[in-house]
Amino acid sequence: MSTAAPADFKTAPAPKDAEGWLVRAAEVAAVLATDAAARDKAAATPYAEVQLLKDSGLVTLLGPVEHGGAGQDWPIAYRVVREVAKADGSIGQLLGYHYLWNWAARLVATREQWEHVEAEAARNQWFFGGAVNPRDQDVVVKDEGDTLTFTGRKTFSTGSKVSDVTVLEGVLEGTDDHVFAIVPSDSEGLTFHDDWDNIGQRLTESGGVTLDAVRVPWSAAAGYVDKRFQPRVYNTLNVPTIQLVFVNFYLGIAAGALETAATYTRTKSRAWLHGGHEHAVDEPYVIDTYGDLTAKLWAAEALADAVAAEGQKLHDDPDAVTEQARGEFEVRVAAVKARATDVALEITNRIFEVTGARATASAEGLDRFWRNVRTHTLHDPVAYKRREIGRHVLTGELPQPTWYS
Amino acid sequence: MSTAAPADFKTAPAPKDAEGWLVRAAEVAAVLATDAAARDKAAATPYAEVQLLKDSGLVTLLGPVEHGGAGQDWPIAYRVVREVAKADGSIGQLLGYHYLWNWAARLVATREQWEHVEAEAARNQWFFGGAVNPRDQDVVVKDEGDTLTFTGRKTFSTGSKVSDVTVLEGVLEGTDDHVFAIVPSDSEGLTFHDDWDNIGQRLTESGGVTLDAVRVPWSAAAGYVDKRFQPRVYNTLNVPTIQLVFVNFYLGIAAGALETAATYTRTKSRAWLHGGHEHAVDEPYVIDTYGDLTAKLWAAEALADAVAAEGQKLHDDPDAVTEQARGEFEVRVAAVKARATDVALEITNRIFEVTGARATASAEGLDRFWRNVRTHTLHDPVAYKRREIGRHVLTGELPQPTWYS
Amino acid sequence: MSTAAPADFKTAPAPKDAEGWLVRAAEVAAVLATDAAARDKAAATPYAEVQLLKDSGLVTLLGPVEHGGAGQDWPIAYRVVREVAKADGSIGQLLGYHYLWNWAARLVATREQWEHVEAEAARNQWFFGGAVNPRDQDVVVKDEGDTLTFTGRKTFSTGSKVSDVTVLEGVLEGTDDHVFAIVPSDSEGLTFHDDWDNIGQRLTESGGVTLDAVRVPWSAAAGYVDKRFQPRVYNTLNVPTIQLVFVNFYLGIAAGALETAATYTRTKSRAWLHGGHEHAVDEPYVIDTYGDLTAKLWAAEALADAVAAEGQKLHDDPDAVTEQARGEFEVRVAAVKARATDVALEITNRIFEVTGARATASAEGLDRFWRNVRTHTLHDPVAYKRREIGRHVLTGELPQPTWYS
Amino acid sequence: MSTAAPADFKTAPAPKDAEGWLVRAAEVAAVLATDAAARDKAAATPYAEVQLLKDSGLVTLLGPVEHGGAGQDWPIAYRVVREVAKADGSIGQLLGYHYLWNWAARLVATREQWEHVEAEAARNQWFFGGAVNPRDQDVVVKDEGDTLTFTGRKTFSTGSKVSDVTVLEGVLEGTDDHVFAIVPSDSEGLTFHDDWDNIGQRLTESGGVTLDAVRVPWSAAAGYVDKRFQPRVYNTLNVPTIQLVFVNFYLGIAAGALETAATYTRTKSRAWLHGGHEHAVDEPYVIDTYGDLTAKLWAAEALADAVAAEGQKLHDDPDAVTEQARGEFEVRVAAVKARATDVALEITNRIFEVTGARATASAEGLDRFWRNVRTHTLHDPVAYKRREIGRHVLTGELPQPTWYS
Repeated sequence: MSTAAPADFKTAPAPKDAEGWLVRAAEVAAVLATDAAARDKAAATPYAEVQLLKDSGLVTLLGPVEHGGAGQDWPIAYRVVREVAKADGSIGQLLGYHYLWNWAARLVATREQWEHVEAEAARNQWFFGGAVNPRDQDVVVKDEGDTLTFTGRKTFSTGSKVSDVTVLEGVLEGTDDHVFAIVPSDSEGLTFHDDWDNIGQRLTESGGVTLDAVRVPWSAAAGYVDKRFQPRVYNTLNVPTIQLVFVNFYLGIAAGALETAATYTRTKSRAWLHGGHEHAVDEPYVIDTYGDLTAKLWAAEALADAVAAEGQKLHDDPDAVTEQARGEFEVRVAAVKARATDVALEITNRIFEVTGARATASAEGLDRFWRNVRTHTLHDPVAYKRREIGRHVLTGELPQPTWYS
Repeated sequence: MSTAAPADFKTAPAPKDAEGWLVRAAEVAAVLATDAAARDKAAATPYAEVQLLKDSGLVTLLGPVEHGGAGQDWPIAYRVVREVAKADGSIGQLLGYHYLWNWAARLVATREQWEHVEAEAARNQWFFGGAVNPRDQDVVVKDEGDTLTFTGRKTFSTGSKVSDVTVLEGVLEGTDDHVFAIVPSDSEGLTFHDDWDNIGQRLTESGGVTLDAVRVPWSAAAGYVDKRFQPRVYNTLNVPTIQLVFVNFYLGIAAGALETAATYTRTKSRAWLHGGHEHAVDEPYVIDTYGDLTAKLWAAEALADAVAAEGQKLHDDPDAVTEQARGEFEVRVAAVKARATDVALEITNRIFEVTGARATASAEGLDRFWRNVRTHTLHDPVAYKRREIGRHVLTGELPQPTWYS
Repeated sequence: MSTAAPADFKTAPAPKDAEGWLVRAAEVAAVLATDAAARDKAAATPYAEVQLLKDSGLVTLLGPVEHGGAGQDWPIAYRVVREVAKADGSIGQLLGYHYLWNWAARLVATREQWEHVEAEAARNQWFFGGAVNPRDQDVVVKDEGDTLTFTGRKTFSTGSKVSDVTVLEGVLEGTDDHVFAIVPSDSEGLTFHDDWDNIGQRLTESGGVTLDAVRVPWSAAAGYVDKRFQPRVYNTLNVPTIQLVFVNFYLGIAAGALETAATYTRTKSRAWLHGGHEHAVDEPYVIDTYGDLTAKLWAAEALADAVAAEGQKLHDDPDAVTEQARGEFEVRVAAVKARATDVALEITNRIFEVTGARATASAEGLDRFWRNVRTHTLHDPVAYKRREIGRHVLTGELPQPTWYS
Repeated sequence: MSTAAPADFKTAPAPKDAEGWLVRAAEVAAVLATDAAARDKAAATPYAEVQLLKDSGLVTLLGPVEHGGAGQDWPIAYRVVREVAKADGSIGQLLGYHYLWNWAARLVATREQWEHVEAEAARNQWFFGGAVNPRDQDVVVKDEGDTLTFTGRKTFSTGSKVSDVTVLEGVLEGTDDHVFAIVPSDSEGLTFHDDWDNIGQRLTESGGVTLDAVRVPWSAAAGYVDKRFQPRVYNTLNVPTIQLVFVNFYLGIAAGALETAATYTRTKSRAWLHGGHEHAVDEPYVIDTYGDLTAKLWAAEALADAVAAEGQKLHDDPDAVTEQARGEFEVRVAAVKARATDVALEITNRIFEVTGARATASAEGLDRFWRNVRTHTLHDPVAYKRREIGRHVLTGELPQPTWYS
């Protein structure tokens, strides 16, 4: 990554509108793209890259304007994630997760709490991580009077070392109630294990974390008033909101793969020596494949944009979100998750057919796109997403809100 | 088709907005659905169905408000076509072609001409057909002073007998210039052959037509001033505009197939006797298939809507349409054509897997969806649509405007 | 169907070996092909076609040589079914079902019984039908001393009016035991309803049948000795054996579709007018599609042949068939069923893309291939076939023998 | 790789028949499987693995019995390659290429020459490599009287350092004639560059090679008599013969992926926490996917076996090979290449969906299957294989023999 670039963003004037922020995201992506393959191999902690996200203003994209944020909405945030992920799937994921963890305050906390969090986050350019992996209920929260302590272990904690603050999650001892709280990532008792070594999304710092009596004041327990949590339907929008984050970095990775491949085909691929064509871009099978993959990508992107707009209507009036509206949105998100998964896997797999044998050189790093998509699309089984849709279409059933639906 | 229904529409107040027109379209579809399978078998000329389209106001959807039209735009027209096609693919096609032939005046004619045509069309509820099949250049237009005569034969003339007016097209003798003109469908010299007998879209009256010196005043030659045609880029928007009509009735047929199948699965299908499930809607493979097909349909629909909106921007300012903008739009249309084709074929083929063996009874008529899609998706090879996209993505090339691209 | 042809087969010398019988089957197919599309439309009872099968010797292909049969084995029978189905899927199905019903004696009956049946069948050129649709257990068999009576109704009875003899099946009153027996198709009390009107396999005479106290001597109750049935594993080979019949007529229909389409492409299709190619056979997308579909067909055929050979080993030594061997064979049959289904649907759907718009003319009848495959592949859900394979691969589980597995 | 194992094979009695050799191959595969993932990461030169192939007798599988070979035929050799590739795609490729280079003598050389080569190869357990990459015609062969010298560079030379002998190929200066010759891999002037660093098939030692006046006696120029080459059709069987090698290691890798995944699903995967199933092997989508992938694999394997048998008939009587027979065989090979490519890519991509998120841990190494298939399937464009088939089916055209068809 060019070390000069971040400085430019710091001094550049902030974009004025949504369109401007998409341009900014593309500029950030251009910086990330220069050495994305090499950084994937190195799997080094992306401190500089997170700094770039801060300097460029993308970290505070959703933050309140009065505290230095850009005041944009989720549809733009999703497209920014997509744009960044074109160049680097890991950084796209980190940014998208950050948006969600930052937004978690609104989803779960009281108005007083989230206004405070959003102001602080924007002013200080907090980068959010999250030790929230609800599949393993292995963090116990103890009530110690004015304070809570979180103790246990989470298998995955995206962001970890590169984050400023971390969202903790655990179950209040003696109850079934979950508690969310934001703590500084260097809090005493919080140990990141740095043990993420997977085939894809290698820079996401998604390793395990140990919580050893991490202390949190009761006042920071999101949504709790007098030690009691007051649920509302809007709480459960966390899942479709983050699943749309997933969708958008899948689509970003796929678009990045396709663009990278097209450049390769145009500049490096050779026409087949027995095919009668002079350039690879004249090969009928090459043209047909790019046509087919592009059409599939565009359809998935269009659905992602449409569903993001549908979601924004819910975010615009949180108290009005009904179970029916939430359920129908979840089903729509499930659909775009299914499409994005299929399309991103197909594109990242098939780009090789149109770049050719020499494109498998390790130095090209073209396999990282597939490895990235392949890894994260397993977060939860897409078959269960199709199931949500199918049940809804057949019987009108709404997905039961869980940590995955 | 219930004979009572049309009367209701005639006396019902006109919808007030776009949303209302979509509801109206759905109501029309509900009437058409009652006997769609039987009418497909009978292949009878759809006089009553066209009357229904008139009575319901759908025929004048795009017409100027001051002359009794609904003043809606293309994105709504496309969705109306989709809605009608859910119940009856043929009627959806007839309506969509009608919109295009009516609009052809704007695409090609002078302002004076098209304002006149649109006013007359709206006031008289003209239903448009078209004897325009440019693949076969076999209609000769002769200049006979103040008059032109069209002589020749067209293989396909959608609408024919059910239309009030027909758009003629031919090549001016001694030139390469095409002439379009609108004539009454009962004009002397115009003979419809009633020879459309294909496996799908059986009610579209798409048979051949013979033109034997059909007379047209020069003043009706669209876009001609002093016997000279003044081309502009907007003329060439006819192809992407009609191709989006195709897309939308494909998607409507697919949606209709899926809904019809879901009703069947819910009410008639039996769970497999060795599967351990009580109802077909509980079969995992059934649920998964509906989930998969729905996700694919929604993605194609989202792209269709997005591209329709992109097209509307061009229609909003015809004189501003550049070759670049036209070309990029055509490529986007090509993409949604490719997706709609694939998705509609897959859905109409696979609904049987989730309805079961008894759903193949002729009386159910579930094969009409596939026959309809299969027939019209061959209008021009979708491989050439993928080609347009692929070339553009690889080299920036814009599709050369032809009658098919 | 040329009426002259059958006479030729009657006087022609019988083929000498397996290869010769395949040639004979191809000759029969050539006769059937001449008017297959027209006969599909007419849906007339195929008396002449069954006579052709008799005259050509195909009806007695599996019969004992000493009684006039050809003494061939199942792998050849399957390939003959495939060959005949290339021209006419219905006749292929009728022939394949006939082979199975004829063989049912060996599967279920005592040696004395089946030797008698096979001798009579070969000598008299019996054409077999079957009123065996075990999904609906609605035929009751009553013990009336020396005689049994069959009373009830079967929804599907393939062959019916064109058969000489019919295999009846019912449950012995007061027991769970099934009884199979062969009776003349014109037996008193047996009424064929002629109510098969489905979108495909229209000539298979698969309508319902009513059994009103159809009398059968106890001695004809297959496999019963002293009114008790002695089961053996070989009995349960009926399902994989008939499922391989299905597979082979699916593949035959697919091969026929591909050949018919190739002839059309070669002789009638036009190259795309904007593609720069002179002949349709030079279009890259056309060539690619034929290449892809052919490769898929050949792979499915190769698996069908391999599994047929595996099955023959079991038929060669019926008493040695273990549950393990039977189960592994059933899993292999399930696999080829899954492949043949997918491939036949894909081919019969996609041939239109390489023949073009005019190939949808009703007169061409090219949709019959898809309608035929689509109809019969729903006989039992292919999802449950994949399930058998998946469970076996994952856990070693063998499919429980039922009427469908 | 267990270092003890090879010794066992050395002392074990040689298998007696084809079935025994398949068992032997499976035993070798079991040894290779123990550390295949780790060796892929290390990308170390596979000296020990090649020694294992020698000790086990697989290297001399096709060699003449009288000189210590196993005297097996190509169908068995292909299945041995498949078996070995299940455990290690690279070693499968090395072995398969070895078989071809060893056989190259028969394909090209005079009887005297190839009998000598085969005897020496079997007696000395030569492992063959090949510096034959005809796409780049950049090795010049000079006639220096009794000797030839080869000078130039080949981009890919599979086997290289682990081989005992290497097949050289070049064009005789001043002619268009290719010369093949076998030389010791440590010949003076032969330099292997060790520069193979690609995403898959990492142990195949497929780096570049420089030839600096490598000397070869004229008598070793395969097929040359009096400095003149006498061509025959059988020469051109090299392409389909090696392409079937490719097919078989693709299928082996796919089978290995599926088996490895099934073991993982059975022993490590967790059922989905909201799915209601206790074990992953009970998840309907998991079962369905294994069923689908297995069926596809089996179909491709069946075609591979069928085509191998067809090829063996040609090898059995080399002088009888006509251009027609050669061409039809090539088309059949093209078909199985197309199927094996598709199926192997699908399986190696989709195994993750049925193993789950934790299966993406680098330590599991499950991505190596996809990387291996993805890399080698680009050897030559499979689109051109489909083209060969499509042209043949449509027009009867036979593929022109080249180095790739």
